[in-house]
Amino acid sequence: MGIPLSSNARLSSLEGRAPAITTLCSHSSLQIFHGARKEGFRTIGLAAGTPPRFYDAFPLARPDRFVTVPKMADLPSVADHLRSEAAVIVPHGSFVEYMGADAFSAWDVPVYGNRKVISWEADRKKSREWLESAGATMPRRYDHASEVDGPVIVKYYGAKGGKGFFLAKNREALDDFHPTGPYVIQEYVLGTRYYMHFFYTPLSDRGYRVGHGSLELLGMDRRDEANIDELYKLGAHEELVRAGIRPTFVVTGNVPVVLRESLLPRAFEVAAHIVERSIELFGGMVGPFCLEGIMTEELEFKVFEISTRIVAGTNLFISGSPYSDFVEPNLSTGRRIAQEIRRALDTGRLAEIIS
Amino acid sequence: MGIPLSSNARLSSLEGRAPAITTLCSHSSLQIFHGARKEGFRTIGLAAGTPPRFYDAFPLARPDRFVTVPKMADLPSVADHLRSEAAVIVPHGSFVEYMGADAFSAWDVPVYGNRKVISWEADRKKSREWLESAGATMPRRYDHASEVDGPVIVKYYGAKGGKGFFLAKNREALDDFHPTGPYVIQEYVLGTRYYMHFFYTPLSDRGYRVGHGSLELLGMDRRDEANIDELYKLGAHEELVRAGIRPTFVVTGNVPVVLRESLLPRAFEVAAHIVERSIELFGGMVGPFCLEGIMTEELEFKVFEISTRIVAGTNLFISGSPYSDFVEPNLSTGRRIAQEIRRALDTGRLAEIIS
Amino acid sequence: MGIPLSSNARLSSLEGRAPAITTLCSHSSLQIFHGARKEGFRTIGLAAGTPPRFYDAFPLARPDRFVTVPKMADLPSVADHLRSEAAVIVPHGSFVEYMGADAFSAWDVPVYGNRKVISWEADRKKSREWLESAGATMPRRYDHASEVDGPVIVKYYGAKGGKGFFLAKNREALDDFHPTGPYVIQEYVLGTRYYMHFFYTPLSDRGYRVGHGSLELLGMDRRDEANIDELYKLGAHEELVRAGIRPTFVVTGNVPVVLRESLLPRAFEVAAHIVERSIELFGGMVGPFCLEGIMTEELEFKVFEISTRIVAGTNLFISGSPYSDFVEPNLSTGRRIAQEIRRALDTGRLAEIIS
Repeated sequence: MGIPLSSNARLSSLEGRAPAITTLCSHSSLQIFHGARKEGFRTIGLAAGTPPRFYDAFPLARPDRFVTVPKMADLPSVADHLRSEAAVIVPHGSFVEYMGADAFSAWDVPVYGNRKVISWEADRKKSREWLESAGATMPRRYDHASEVDGPVIVKYYGAKGGKGFFLAKNREALDDFHPTGPYVIQEYVLGTRYYMHFFYTPLSDRGYRVGHGSLELLGMDRRDEANIDELYKLGAHEELVRAGIRPTFVVTGNVPVVLRESLLPRAFEVAAHIVERSIELFGGMVGPFCLEGIMTEELEFKVFEISTRIVAGTNLFISGSPYSDFVEPNLSTGRRIAQEIRRALDTGRLAEIIS
Repeated sequence: MGIPLSSNARLSSLEGRAPAITTLCSHSSLQIFHGARKEGFRTIGLAAGTPPRFYDAFPLARPDRFVTVPKMADLPSVADHLRSEAAVIVPHGSFVEYMGADAFSAWDVPVYGNRKVISWEADRKKSREWLESAGATMPRRYDHASEVDGPVIVKYYGAKGGKGFFLAKNREALDDFHPTGPYVIQEYVLGTRYYMHFFYTPLSDRGYRVGHGSLELLGMDRRDEANIDELYKLGAHEELVRAGIRPTFVVTGNVPVVLRESLLPRAFEVAAHIVERSIELFGGMVGPFCLEGIMTEELEFKVFEISTRIVAGTNLFISGSPYSDFVEPNLSTGRRIAQEIRRALDTGRLAEIIS
Repeated sequence: MGIPLSSNARLSSLEGRAPAITTLCSHSSLQIFHGARKEGFRTIGLAAGTPPRFYDAFPLARPDRFVTVPKMADLPSVADHLRSEAAVIVPHGSFVEYMGADAFSAWDVPVYGNRKVISWEADRKKSREWLESAGATMPRRYDHASEVDGPVIVKYYGAKGGKGFFLAKNREALDDFHPTGPYVIQEYVLGTRYYMHFFYTPLSDRGYRVGHGSLELLGMDRRDEANIDELYKLGAHEELVRAGIRPTFVVTGNVPVVLRESLLPRAFEVAAHIVERSIELFGGMVGPFCLEGIMTEELEFKVFEISTRIVAGTNLFISGSPYSDFVEPNLSTGRRIAQEIRRALDTGRLAEIIS
C-alpha cells in the first residue's frame, strides 16, 4: 500500500459508481476519450461555449456527452454536477493553463494525479530545485552577462507561448541585446531534442521499480516550433534578425522519434530519481510525465523542462509507439491512464492516484 | 440522394460486375492496391513499358494483373479493354500529371471522383478563387516589387518540379533578383508546414456533416524537399546563393506529423467551407484531398495549395494514422477509397462518386 | 540450395536443440528480443558488467536470461557456454564495434549472417570498390584540393563518432581549412537523406528475386545527428565556425520517413546489384542491410555508406513500417530475423544463413 493523495471525502462521489473519465476538449482529449472507451469507461467532455464539432469526425474518440460552461473561468461551478456524474478529471497541459493553477488546485472534484505537483512545475525556481536535486543536468543559468562563456538564450520574464527570446552564439553577440524589461540568461545547449513520455504507477511493483511502484516509457516525440524550425530557409539567423525577423518557439505539432538504445539506461535513471525526489518533496508525482531535453554531441541529456501530466506529443501514438509496443500492443498514454484508474478501482486503491 | 457526377452510360461497364480497382503504377499505388485487396477487390496496375518489378517485394500490395501500354500517351487506347474489365480508375497526383489533364478528363472509363475538379486545381488563378471564396487564408500575391513589405518567394512562370525560385527576406533583398523571364511574387510565410489528408464522402451523413455528406481527417504529413531541407548544413542561405547554390523544393519523401489538437477545429472549418464551395462551383469534390499550408507563430493556417486526390504523404499510414485510428483501426486512405466504392456499389450510388 | 556460409562444425551446437536468439544488450536489442519471442524463441542478453535495468520496463522485450562478462573484451571467453546454450548470435552495429571486428570474426559461436562481410564493410576502400562495382553512385573522392569543383566535406582519418569534419561550400571556402592531420576530401551531396532497411533472404526464391534468393524492403528512417541538425537555430554556419562552434554528426536517434514511390524501382535495382556483387566477392551478404544515401534535387540517390546488419533506425518500426505492412502485418526487422532462423531450422538450411 502506497501513499494516499486524497482523503475519503474527495473520493466519496465515486463510491459504488462507474466513473466517467472527463477532460477538457483540447490538447490530448481525443486520445484520452479513445483510451477510456477502450477500457470500458463512460466519457465526458468539458467545453467552454459550444462543444467543438470536430469530434463528429472521430467516432472512436467522441465523448459520450458534453458538459459546457459559458467560459473557462466558470468551470469551478460545475463541480457538484461532475461529482454527481462520478467524474474523474484527467488533466492535461492546456487544462491547467486555461482554468488557472489556483482554481484547478482548489476544484472540488476527483482529479487523476497529485495536484501538489502543479506548484512545483509552474514555478521555474522550484522546478529547477526539484530536478537538479534529483541529479538531472540542466542548462546553466547566468546571473550576469559577463559570466557568459558560450551560446545563450535570453528570455524575458513572463514571455508566453514561445515568444520574446534572443539567441547569442557567444558573449560578444550578446552586445546586440538591448533589453526592454527583466530577463534571464540561460545556456543554449546544442544538440537534438527529445521529449520522453514516461509513466509512473504506484500501483504495480513489477517492472522497473521506483519507490513502491514502477516506471514505464510509453513514447518519444520532438516538437514542431514556429517559426524557428523552418526559419533557416529564408536566410541566415543573423541577417534575419537584422531585418527584424525574430525567432519564435511556438509549438504547432509533433513528430515521432526514437532515441539511441544505449542512451535509455541513463534516461531511465534520471527519470527514476526525479520520481523518487517527488515522493520526498510532495508525496509523489503519479501517472504520465514528460522529460524534455537536448542530447548533446557528448551524448549527455540536458533537461530543460518537465511536464507533469500527459503531453500533446503522445497524440502521435494512438495505436502504440516503438516503446509502448514492448509493454502491450496498441497502448497509448490515454489508454494507460484509463487502465490505471481501472486497476485502482478494482483493488480499492483510488486514494493513491486521485487527489 | 446527392449529386450525380456521371451519366448511366459512364457506369454501364460496371453493371452486374465486380469492379477492378485500377491505378497507374506509381505515387501511392502500393497503398491503393493494398487497400483495395483488404476490401475484397480485384486490382489492375497500369504501366508504360514493363511493369515495375518492385511489387514482387510487396506481396500484400501487388496488383492482380498489369495492363501495359508502350508509353503514357497511349493510355487512352486501352479504354475499351479497361471497361471490359470493369475497371474503376483511382487517380493520384502523378496519374493526371503523366497522362495529361486533357487526356485524363476525356478518358472514356469510370474514374473515382469528380473529374471537373481537375481544371479548378490545375489553374492557379481558379484554385485561388475557389479557396479564398471559401474563406481560406492564402499567401498574398504582389503585383509589383514595390508593394513588398515582408519576406517573399519569387517563382518563374512554368517553373516545374520545385525549381526556379528566389527567396528574399525583404524588399531590399529583392534587389538581387534579376529576372530572366516572367514571374510572380508571393508572400513567404514563416512557420511549420502541415499537409492535412482529408476525405469527403457524399455517401454518409453521419459524422462531421458537410453538404449532404461528411468530412473525415485520415492523416497528416510534412514533405521532404531537396535541397532546401538540409541546405543550411552547408552554409548560410545568402552565402550559398552567392556561391551559385540555389534552393530547390523537389519533393523526395514524407515524414509523419500531428497538429496541436486546439488547431483542429479551425482546420475542419476551412476544409468544410472548401468542400461546400466546390459543390457550388462544380458539383463537388469527392474523396481524398489535401490542404497544404503553413502554421504561423500566430497559429494561423495559411493554405498555399490544395491537392484534390490522394497525396503521397498518405503512404506513411498504411496501417492507420494518429487520426484515422479514431475512425477505424488499420485505415489507410487507399483502403478508405475502396470502402467508398464498396458502399456505393452496395447502395446503388456509384453515380455520386464516379465521373 | 544456396551457398553454405559455415561448416557443420560451426553448427554442431545447434543440433537437436531449440536455439536461443542472443545479442548484446544495446543498439536494437529490445527489437531483436521482442521479435524472437514473437516467433517462439528463447532469448539471451549479453552484457558487460550488470545487465541494464531498463529491460524491466519492457516486459515483451526482456531477454529470458542474461550472460554477463566483466568487460566487452571478455566476450570470447563465454563461447563454450553460449554453444552449450545453443545460442545463435544476432549481430548489430554496436556489437561488432564494441567487441572488435577481429575478435567477432574469430568468435567460435554460430553467428547469424555472413561474417566475411565485416572486412568489406569496415574498410572504406573495399566498401567503395564493392558498391561502385555494383553500379551504385557514391559521393566523389578528391585527391587534391585543387580538383574541388563544388561543395565538399573534409574528414580527418580515424575521426570517430561523427566528429572531426570540415564543410566547404566551394574551393575558395576550403582555404579556411588548416589541416592538423591526414584527411580525405569528399563531395558534399546536397539533398535529403534516406536510410533504407533492406533484407536479403537466400531461403526464398519468391518475391523480388536476386541470386538464388529474394530482396525485401522493411522500412526507412532518417538519422538525428547532434549538433548539426539544430545548429542553424543559433546562427549561420560560417559565423558559428568563426566563433569556434564546429558542426558534428553524432547519431542520437531516428525519425521515420517514406520515399517517393517512383524512386523505389531504382532503389531496388541498386540494392539488388549490391547483393549480387556480394555473392561474387565473398559468398553473399544475408539478412538485414541498410543503404544510406542522399536523394538529390535531380532525384538521383547517392549512396554514402552501407551497413551490413540491423541498423538502429529499425527501432522505429516495432509493429511494422509503411513498407513491411505490404509484406506481413506487425513485421519488424528483428522479427524478420527470427522468422529467417525458424525457416532455416525447419528446412535444414542453417548453413546458408549462419557463419
